[in-house]
Amino acid sequence: MIILGLDPSLSCTGWGVIRAEGSRLTHIANGQLPSDAKAPLAARLAALQAGLAQVIAQHRPDRAAAEEVFVNKNPQSTLKLAQARGAVLAACGAAGLTVSEHSARAVKKTLVGTGAADKAQVQAMIGVLLPGVKVAGADAADALAVAIAAAHGGSR
Amino acid sequence: MIILGLDPSLSCTGWGVIRAEGSRLTHIANGQLPSDAKAPLAARLAALQAGLAQVIAQHRPDRAAAEEVFVNKNPQSTLKLAQARGAVLAACGAAGLTVSEHSARAVKKTLVGTGAADKAQVQAMIGVLLPGVKVAGADAADALAVAIAAAHGGSR
Repeated sequence: MIILGLDPSLSCTGWGVIRAEGSRLTHIANGQLPSDAKAPLAARLAALQAGLAQVIAQHRPDRAAAEEVFVNKNPQSTLKLAQARGAVLAACGAAGLTVSEHSARAVKKTLVGTGAADKAQVQAMIGVLLPGVKVAGADAADALAVAIAAAHGGSR
Repeated sequence: MIILGLDPSLSCTGWGVIRAEGSRLTHIANGQLPSDAKAPLAARLAALQAGLAQVIAQHRPDRAAAEEVFVNKNPQSTLKLAQARGAVLAACGAAGLTVSEHSARAVKKTLVGTGAADKAQVQAMIGVLLPGVKVAGADAADALAVAIAAAHGGSR
């Protein structure tokens, strides 16, 4: 089972692909899809989808997983995030992938054992669970964390 | 100049295509893209994009216009709307269309002369400005209204 983890955002969407065989996980690839902040919104979203479609075509995941969206205190940030997420989910849907959703808390709990874990702890566990992984950045790390959580079956 | 007006929503996205030659407007087509509420979110968003891509391929608009998103009091509704909007804008971007944004108030003001106009007044003006139009429903009417506002150049 190949799982595509996603951390959607308009400025930079993280992605990570892992293979899960039983409880054994292997890192396949990870990366980040930045978007040009000067381009119009529609073009940015289209570029995000095109980048993601390429990742999907290359790694042929069986399913996808994304962090549950949270409502930010800043409504404009929430709107940007949700629009990027809509484009990302649509690209998955177009490729026939189902996308499981995982709360940030559940992801942390699966990886570190507590929903209150900090980013450094999560990133350290990614290194432990996916030996030899080189992570492209913080967004790719979040995406790999979601993929691992999805492999372990926790959706809350 | 052919303008595609859009009223994005997850449950039913309205669209309307008009031709603008100077101040003369002609109706070309309008419709609604409902989505299957029982399908997973990613599949719904992909279906919405596929439907819209078909509309764009058939009518070859020069530009698109959408109502500015507003932050609903219900954060879950706002998220659904914004995700649908992200998918819709990405489909426009993939087709090379720029999408102008128009506040609901500006649309009403352009059509009726006051930003406080009600839906019935807006729909009546659509009938006046696009003689003979048969409107597919309330969402298609909103989309035509945005297209008309875009033709008249008011973005606020």
